[in-house]
Amino acid sequence: MTKGTHIDQLQTPVAIIDEDVMDANIKVVQRYFDEIGRSFRPHIKTHKIPALARKQVEAGAIGINCQKISEAEVFANAGFNDILITFNMLGDDRLARLKALNDRVGLQVVADNEVVVRALASTFAKNAPLKVLVECDTGAGRNGVQSPEDALALALKINAEEGLTFHGLLTYPKANTEDAVEAFFSKTISLLKEQGLACPVVSHGGSPSLLDSHLVKSATEHRAGTYIFNDRAMVRAGLCDFDDCAMHVVATVVSRPTETRAVLDSGSKALTSDLLGFEDYGHVVDYPEASITALSEEHAVVDLSKCSKKPEIGERLRIIPNHTCVVSNLYDQLVFHKSGHVSAVETVAARGCVT
Amino acid sequence: MTKGTHIDQLQTPVAIIDEDVMDANIKVVQRYFDEIGRSFRPHIKTHKIPALARKQVEAGAIGINCQKISEAEVFANAGFNDILITFNMLGDDRLARLKALNDRVGLQVVADNEVVVRALASTFAKNAPLKVLVECDTGAGRNGVQSPEDALALALKINAEEGLTFHGLLTYPKANTEDAVEAFFSKTISLLKEQGLACPVVSHGGSPSLLDSHLVKSATEHRAGTYIFNDRAMVRAGLCDFDDCAMHVVATVVSRPTETRAVLDSGSKALTSDLLGFEDYGHVVDYPEASITALSEEHAVVDLSKCSKKPEIGERLRIIPNHTCVVSNLYDQLVFHKSGHVSAVETVAARGCVT
Repeated sequence: MTKGTHIDQLQTPVAIIDEDVMDANIKVVQRYFDEIGRSFRPHIKTHKIPALARKQVEAGAIGINCQKISEAEVFANAGFNDILITFNMLGDDRLARLKALNDRVGLQVVADNEVVVRALASTFAKNAPLKVLVECDTGAGRNGVQSPEDALALALKINAEEGLTFHGLLTYPKANTEDAVEAFFSKTISLLKEQGLACPVVSHGGSPSLLDSHLVKSATEHRAGTYIFNDRAMVRAGLCDFDDCAMHVVATVVSRPTETRAVLDSGSKALTSDLLGFEDYGHVVDYPEASITALSEEHAVVDLSKCSKKPEIGERLRIIPNHTCVVSNLYDQLVFHKSGHVSAVETVAARGCVT
Repeated sequence: MTKGTHIDQLQTPVAIIDEDVMDANIKVVQRYFDEIGRSFRPHIKTHKIPALARKQVEAGAIGINCQKISEAEVFANAGFNDILITFNMLGDDRLARLKALNDRVGLQVVADNEVVVRALASTFAKNAPLKVLVECDTGAGRNGVQSPEDALALALKINAEEGLTFHGLLTYPKANTEDAVEAFFSKTISLLKEQGLACPVVSHGGSPSLLDSHLVKSATEHRAGTYIFNDRAMVRAGLCDFDDCAMHVVATVVSRPTETRAVLDSGSKALTSDLLGFEDYGHVVDYPEASITALSEEHAVVDLSKCSKKPEIGERLRIIPNHTCVVSNLYDQLVFHKSGHVSAVETVAARGCVT
């Protein structure tokens, strides 16, 4: 695929990124964090591409956020040296790789339980200690200690290990719960202070209420990924408009079996089955009344019954996915364009990094 | 990863295949089709691995079924020479690739509309014609002509093109609708006969009612993929037991934030978000009362409230996915084992073939 090719010439399905929209998204969010005086650490899961993380860092981000050791290795190899891995690390092979990575880059990880702390402690030594944040469950119901008292207890355990450095707190919050997050963090910080423990990093995160991050006053940094491309869920959350969505999946109408049904060549291998609370599988930009009601691996079935005009066989449609991060994981490459002409093609370098 | 390694030593998440179970699945289904005297054409989407398709062909399958030109090219390069692509082909680049492929292997494709027939007709010439089946919508509500009369009309159009050969009928049916499929096929066949059109292939398909294929008396072949690994949906359909499921995703418990919650390192990147009508994301073999209630990209949240015994942090769990085909598309490699010891590692050669 050569630069300058018009996107209408690309074989479908294809995931394309409007570079101008993406660049604007990077700027808007970085400006917000600059204005509230808070560090910003983008999550690379949305794009998995070092060149894009470089743009984010050049705009002012302090480093990057990964979830897997294999992702962190890809980005370390590409020259990134401030990496936070927000996942409990277990397993001999994984711990050995973590140790090797900690010798090469500025690394931080999380822990929310003693088993993980013991595994880390048995891997790292005093001469090259590992920075560990305590992950707190502030209401999202995923990982995390359940109370400020439990956070303190785990911080003390980390602090007691000579190969580990207690480095702060972290949460992946439920959207729109800034008060609860702040209550959890500030209580924990005061408990830590009573015990004489410094807490350099207080890491808040999440995309849907990204621009309310200032309400969590005790946080020192924010982590988020989706904003770089945006998606239908971000529009629903009020963070942006459809025009701010940089990623489109372009699909072709391959069949019109009935008056009210179209079938596209973009199935779950192109759009994913991620509903994220929606009832259908993406927003069809060119036919907003159309509804993608079912996906099989290669087929998207579209209900056209509410459409005044209807697409013809052979027509190409742009779809804004429900959840952009999971779409990036399906493609070997993302195609970038400016005003419809291909400006770059990037390999999704950390695609499929499951371990 | 070396042969003989115990699966407990593999980094998680990992998709493993019990080779003995897989081999038994291949045999059972091929024997059924041998007994009813019908050709069987496995769909490669379930594994995307030439070595496995070879086993299926060696067991008696007549050829393979792909859905994308890129998949077909992978398998043609691996030596397969009887390939049916069950997807409407549109787009200059795709048609050029289809023409090149038709010069190399025995190829058949489908069409369900005139636009596709015209596109194929403009690509293929009399000296190397393309075999085209008419896809029929017998109730699944995806692609396909809507009536036997429409099937006849399209068959006549194909027959009128000197670069195309009308080669038969095909359907991807709704499960347990063998009577409706047979009614559609037999009516169409009699209409074709009246017009003097031969119909060498009548291709039935689908997994959930695979073993009722004999009820579609006019069919000459069956297409199905899932049976080679089986999955939770096949168990629900009564086609097999959990013991017949060859694919497990092995995950590690990385957190136990509360008495009733576990978190695994197998998120939607390891299990997919495909619910396939289930309410949760897979069957936990070792804790059948556990329910995987939510997935984010790297986390699986498990509700343990109904479990009498509960897994500990660090424990490895085997999960039977809801839908095995979409899981294969997430991994660069599948790991095969016999009685828990690695017997082979195969690259998922046609993974990510979206075009």
